[in-house]
Amino acid sequence: MFKAEVFVTLKPVVNDPAGLTIRGGLQALGFESVKDVRAGKYLAITLDEPDEARARARVEEMAQQLLANAVIEDFRIEVQPA
Amino acid sequence: MFKAEVFVTLKPVVNDPAGLTIRGGLQALGFESVKDVRAGKYLAITLDEPDEARARARVEEMAQQLLANAVIEDFRIEVQPA
Repeated sequence: MFKAEVFVTLKPVVNDPAGLTIRGGLQALGFESVKDVRAGKYLAITLDEPDEARARARVEEMAQQLLANAVIEDFRIEVQPA
Repeated sequence: MFKAEVFVTLKPVVNDPAGLTIRGGLQALGFESVKDVRAGKYLAITLDEPDEARARARVEEMAQQLLANAVIEDFRIEVQPA
């Protein structure tokens, strides 16, 4: 069993209204050192594969097919034994 | 300048309908090795603080006050120089 973590973020050139809103909220609360906020998705996937390389390859396919929108999003994957 | 990453996840005892829907979608696409999916939020925050310990302490406060709902969510923070 492996646990994969997938971090999906908007590409740097894509506007991020959620991130801007969070930045505004933080600054309004007094966190004035905040310069930028980018909002994304975090997915923790438990999967049953025979080895780590195979688990990573499968999660890579999942991200390309369903989890991320390649037009506007990037993703990063981390895999570890669960 | 520091870059902080905040991972916000639902507590294990809280139902996660988004995660269940994603799991169903992945299994329908043929990813039958997927046993569980938990969906969460990922935030990348750039902030201007004098040192890493202070940056981490500020982000901890942000997470408690605004980024996470302590009743149903857990969070994890990673900080690195930007």
